[in-house]
Amino acid sequence: MPTLKEITARFGGEHSRDDGEVQINAAASLTNAGEGDIAFYESRAGERALKQCNASAILIEREHADKTQKPKWIVAKSPRAHFAKLCNFLAPPPPPSPGVSPKAEVHDSANIGGGASIAPFAVVESGASIGDGASIGANAYIGKDCQVGEQTRISPNVVLYHGVTIGARCIVHAGVVIGADGFGFVADDNEQIKIPHKGGASIGDNVEIGANTCIDRGTLDDTVIADGAKIDNLVQIGHNVKVGRGTVICGCVGIAGSATIGEFCVIGGAADINGHLTIGDNAVIGGSSAVVRDIAAGETVSSVWPAVAASKWRRYLAKWRRDSEQQQRRKPQRIKQ
Amino acid sequence: MPTLKEITARFGGEHSRDDGEVQINAAASLTNAGEGDIAFYESRAGERALKQCNASAILIEREHADKTQKPKWIVAKSPRAHFAKLCNFLAPPPPPSPGVSPKAEVHDSANIGGGASIAPFAVVESGASIGDGASIGANAYIGKDCQVGEQTRISPNVVLYHGVTIGARCIVHAGVVIGADGFGFVADDNEQIKIPHKGGASIGDNVEIGANTCIDRGTLDDTVIADGAKIDNLVQIGHNVKVGRGTVICGCVGIAGSATIGEFCVIGGAADINGHLTIGDNAVIGGSSAVVRDIAAGETVSSVWPAVAASKWRRYLAKWRRDSEQQQRRKPQRIKQ
Amino acid sequence: MPTLKEITARFGGEHSRDDGEVQINAAASLTNAGEGDIAFYESRAGERALKQCNASAILIEREHADKTQKPKWIVAKSPRAHFAKLCNFLAPPPPPSPGVSPKAEVHDSANIGGGASIAPFAVVESGASIGDGASIGANAYIGKDCQVGEQTRISPNVVLYHGVTIGARCIVHAGVVIGADGFGFVADDNEQIKIPHKGGASIGDNVEIGANTCIDRGTLDDTVIADGAKIDNLVQIGHNVKVGRGTVICGCVGIAGSATIGEFCVIGGAADINGHLTIGDNAVIGGSSAVVRDIAAGETVSSVWPAVAASKWRRYLAKWRRDSEQQQRRKPQRIKQ
Repeated sequence: MPTLKEITARFGGEHSRDDGEVQINAAASLTNAGEGDIAFYESRAGERALKQCNASAILIEREHADKTQKPKWIVAKSPRAHFAKLCNFLAPPPPPSPGVSPKAEVHDSANIGGGASIAPFAVVESGASIGDGASIGANAYIGKDCQVGEQTRISPNVVLYHGVTIGARCIVHAGVVIGADGFGFVADDNEQIKIPHKGGASIGDNVEIGANTCIDRGTLDDTVIADGAKIDNLVQIGHNVKVGRGTVICGCVGIAGSATIGEFCVIGGAADINGHLTIGDNAVIGGSSAVVRDIAAGETVSSVWPAVAASKWRRYLAKWRRDSEQQQRRKPQRIKQ
Repeated sequence: MPTLKEITARFGGEHSRDDGEVQINAAASLTNAGEGDIAFYESRAGERALKQCNASAILIEREHADKTQKPKWIVAKSPRAHFAKLCNFLAPPPPPSPGVSPKAEVHDSANIGGGASIAPFAVVESGASIGDGASIGANAYIGKDCQVGEQTRISPNVVLYHGVTIGARCIVHAGVVIGADGFGFVADDNEQIKIPHKGGASIGDNVEIGANTCIDRGTLDDTVIADGAKIDNLVQIGHNVKVGRGTVICGCVGIAGSATIGEFCVIGGAADINGHLTIGDNAVIGGSSAVVRDIAAGETVSSVWPAVAASKWRRYLAKWRRDSEQQQRRKPQRIKQ
Repeated sequence: MPTLKEITARFGGEHSRDDGEVQINAAASLTNAGEGDIAFYESRAGERALKQCNASAILIEREHADKTQKPKWIVAKSPRAHFAKLCNFLAPPPPPSPGVSPKAEVHDSANIGGGASIAPFAVVESGASIGDGASIGANAYIGKDCQVGEQTRISPNVVLYHGVTIGARCIVHAGVVIGADGFGFVADDNEQIKIPHKGGASIGDNVEIGANTCIDRGTLDDTVIADGAKIDNLVQIGHNVKVGRGTVICGCVGIAGSATIGEFCVIGGAADINGHLTIGDNAVIGGSSAVVRDIAAGETVSSVWPAVAASKWRRYLAKWRRDSEQQQRRKPQRIKQ
């Protein structure tokens, strides 16, 4: 278990004077922390919680450091980020036991890296490659010629269609489907002709993909999710979409085909983005909003309607209809005059 | 097969005079019911359908009972509720055959209750406990130290991450994922640091969870779904959310992290609820609405925009923009004067 | 590999004079096509791309055919539809290897058609019937008495509950759940009584169903998806819904119980349709719109709110509230006077 001195050496920050040898065993919340724990303080937690905290040490911004007497502290630029890193360091997720389960079905031509783990009832098809230390969960399906990077965790019941590429250190949560055919048809004499999908799907390094999210394969080229993108649960990403580096996509978002999303964007929950649009770097799309035009880099947009009392809402809507129709009726008259 | 007398003895209500010995074999709809069937009548079905009904008996409210001559009846406060109970009684779902399939993978340390059923290719990890009479569907995954209560049905391809607790008599439909990591990151120097999720997910008794719904685990404490809550398909429930007793959540709803939903609420389809909000008991959230502030107990809210002819909608939007901008332009002038 | 003459003989259109013997090996995009490839031209691609194209032949409308000198061409009414058919012809998806994997679990009473393929860890329950040339993916679950038509492809991790019927030549993508119980409860003394679902789900021929989409079974009758309907990913289709022939449903759509959707409708992404409504044939529902009333045949409706700069949106909303409330306050005064 590390001392404060070792923690600051590893993650930066500065510990309180003479406290370098204090040992930390675990990370805990401000209210639940006790002897041997480290917690973190943000001003919205309130000074009272800070003063009552029983942690052995607190991660805190410099401007607040003098508000606590009892515990030792580490001054950090972002106590929350520091805390997150520390959590992962103090209690990393237990690695799945390495080795190929005798109950998995792995094709002879698949390439399984050193220390990789293949769980029971997982299927790895021909030509697939599983990186060193990667893990494939129970009942997961890794299609023909897929590549899974080192240390990447594929959870149970994930499906990768043929030819999907995933980088290193990714986390793919249960039920995710990557590389299904995109939704493309051409209407022709009362029949919908399926547009074949010969492209693939390519996921970068350090990407996290939430449970039951779907990422379709491209039509001719790949659908691409760049390094460090974070995608929540039940998100739909259409064919040929490009998602830039470090972009964060919250739950229930839908991104239609061929949209291009920049780097370090934030897309709020349940937002929808039309196909073939371009969203610039660092753009922020508000939750429950619908994007129907290109969004410039750095722009923050929204179209969320906050729910109000239903009776009031009905009156508002009735008025809106009346007003809108009035305008409509008046307009042609003016033109005639 | 029960008689009307036996039915009223079990489920309440009052049967028509001298008809107690009439036998009922099955439940059917008003229009399809025949000899030996019982149907139920609600006024919106229309008196014509009632008069033409060939059921052996009808569940009906007292005020309507004199509208039917032919069939026998049972007077019930809520014919529909009575009918639902009766359906389950007359034709209960066939229990899965008990026993552990030799093709399942069950860890030695897992505890399998009497009469429990584990289907082929299901995986039950170490320390997990499956209650008496519970069933685990094909290809389902029950993580380390999970607890599944008695008589609970886990459908095929469900994934419970480690440490998830589910109560008794629950129904978890196919493709559900419970206990995946919540979506939490801290931006730090162009990198998204993952916030570890050390909490779990705890589901009460008599909960039903629809297909492909996701319920994330908590950050430090559990995500909690209380007894009797009913959740439809493709619902997203974020980390640390609390859902109260008996609350009903329709399909495609998204509830962001740390929201607290009261008891006996109804959340309409495709509604979205922001994170960290509190929704009081018995609140009703309209379908397709977005909730961005706390909702008081008993409040009914909405922000749904009903679709109209697209050409009209375009004109309405154009007018809205014009009017809104006019206001904007005028305002600064007033300030200057 | 076919010549232009053989292609026009099979798919219609007319090839450029004297070019019938030109051989085509593959389909490619206008920009990437080379020797032996065929591409297609639509005017939005631009004449420049057309002139620089190195394909051996181009599918093109008659009015544009004189804009290209170098390559040979085939005149087609819809170059895109022609191209799609040709892609499928030139490079059909590789058929899964026929036969029942020894690692699948197929009940003795199930009926497996000639040339059908059952992958490892798939489960086929008693009484189920798999058509000639159909394929069941890894870890898929085919419930009791299900029927899967000939040449239909069931992808990995799909779940069909008992009694589901699927026609011929369908594509069901990974993670789809068909036939789970609909979401129906009757509130009764602080308890939600489950309405049993005795109906099934019936899917026609040539239907495509996207990844992780859910189609519930009916209450008493079947939920029905007619021939040729195309459904994208993460779509929710409630109990008793009817979807007409050739209708196209984009991603993230929710259709509540007992709605009836006509033939050849188009439902845009993330639209929601209330229960018990009727949508006429050829109706078009705009993306991100909410449908709360019946829609006539051929009608095009919308209620999408395009996202704008968030600061502007906040001002717009504030004005809307002020204006709406003014109206409210004035109205009662008039009544008093």
